[in-house]
Amino acid sequence: MNFLSEIVISKDNPSVKLFRKLIISKKERVKTRLFALEGSRLVFDALSNNAPIEKLFITESALEKFREELKKYKNVQKLLISDELGGRISDTGKTQGIFAQCSFIEGREELPTMKKHGRYVVLSHIQDPGNAGMIIRTADAMGLDGVIFSRSCDIYNPKVVRATMGSLFRIPVFYDIDEDDIFAKLEEAQTASFAAVVDNSAADLKAIDFSKGGAIFIGNEGNGLPEELASRCTERITIKMNGNIESLNAAMATGIIMWELMK
Amino acid sequence: MNFLSEIVISKDNPSVKLFRKLIISKKERVKTRLFALEGSRLVFDALSNNAPIEKLFITESALEKFREELKKYKNVQKLLISDELGGRISDTGKTQGIFAQCSFIEGREELPTMKKHGRYVVLSHIQDPGNAGMIIRTADAMGLDGVIFSRSCDIYNPKVVRATMGSLFRIPVFYDIDEDDIFAKLEEAQTASFAAVVDNSAADLKAIDFSKGGAIFIGNEGNGLPEELASRCTERITIKMNGNIESLNAAMATGIIMWELMK
Repeated sequence: MNFLSEIVISKDNPSVKLFRKLIISKKERVKTRLFALEGSRLVFDALSNNAPIEKLFITESALEKFREELKKYKNVQKLLISDELGGRISDTGKTQGIFAQCSFIEGREELPTMKKHGRYVVLSHIQDPGNAGMIIRTADAMGLDGVIFSRSCDIYNPKVVRATMGSLFRIPVFYDIDEDDIFAKLEEAQTASFAAVVDNSAADLKAIDFSKGGAIFIGNEGNGLPEELASRCTERITIKMNGNIESLNAAMATGIIMWELMK
Repeated sequence: MNFLSEIVISKDNPSVKLFRKLIISKKERVKTRLFALEGSRLVFDALSNNAPIEKLFITESALEKFREELKKYKNVQKLLISDELGGRISDTGKTQGIFAQCSFIEGREELPTMKKHGRYVVLSHIQDPGNAGMIIRTADAMGLDGVIFSRSCDIYNPKVVRATMGSLFRIPVFYDIDEDDIFAKLEEAQTASFAAVVDNSAADLKAIDFSKGGAIFIGNEGNGLPEELASRCTERITIKMNGNIESLNAAMATGIIMWELMK
């Protein structure tokens, strides 16, 4: 056990208390610029993608299981906790006993110059963490140039982080980005914007020419994209199908549009 | 309150006890041929689609909220329960206080004659209830002819039912179907079978001609489709992308294949 830095047994330990706060409080995350990760796949994905992890909490059972793998990451502080304390820290119910405290990823709060004819998805007013995470994960799978959060949920919410399955560390995800800034940078990058809407008079997704890339604007799960925003986009697009379009989940709809964008 | 049939106050009431069992036990569901629904959207979707609902449990708070809507469904037995008892029954944590006990949907345990050049998805060894439900929901959105479960999770598991968002009552979902039976019926229906695999030597999904329909075989989240099954299919297909294909969630991958199938 000599590669461990500390053994923590009390739930009142300041490190443990801070970690719990990072799980439940956005305010705490913003103040400390730290967020929480849980689960072996997520933590090891983050470590192998050189995410700025500053501390690991490992339960006794998890240590037995992951000892060899953990030894690879020498420069990360490792705290041993009891299985019981692991259960208390956990946000998931069934914990795997491995947790990480990670710094905010640098350079994600400002939108850099966009790629000429780049391929992006812009989320506006997306609130469901599961949908947000799934969209990040799918954007990574499909190889988009970036995901841009505007007036949407916190990307460091543990439910979002978990649903990305590590993709948060593989694809650039920008957040709290101002709409004016997005449109200005798209114009510079000569890249068109497409408003995804549920409206049969909009252009059929299947007929859109994405050969010069594009940024797809996706709106809220219930209310869709605000008209004010849709009207600023180059074109309105919609998914035409024979089925019950209202049954299509927001993340699934976004996945299908990204698939067409990347074809 | 005179349209209510009974006021239940005890958690030991036999109706309440049976309902709790239906949530947690597949064995109980199979024995009684009943399953549980929770949440206003799901329950009202089921009622308006004439699902075989035989009993509703409604908390006092939910009754206030949904009284007028509930009055439309005169022939369903309605039991009033306390808010506290509603919290106990609930499978979701945040309950809306409306629950239904529903009979198994008729004719779903045997595969009928399939449609000539029909469009189907076949799930083999799909275990995650969230994925199973999302696939049913997306198949409904896209207008497939049916979803066929073979050696996969229980379609009446509350997590599956919830994730379908009511689509379970709108699209035919067959379950416990034998593979030999599926291949025999597909042949009768002159409909090809496509094995979805992660294999770059398989045919590119984008190049497949689905004009004569097809049944897409989807395998387990981790292990994919058993080779024995893939080799019986007419053709092997794969999703070719530039991104990290292993990041693509099984339900999302299935959604994209269904999108191409239905185009």
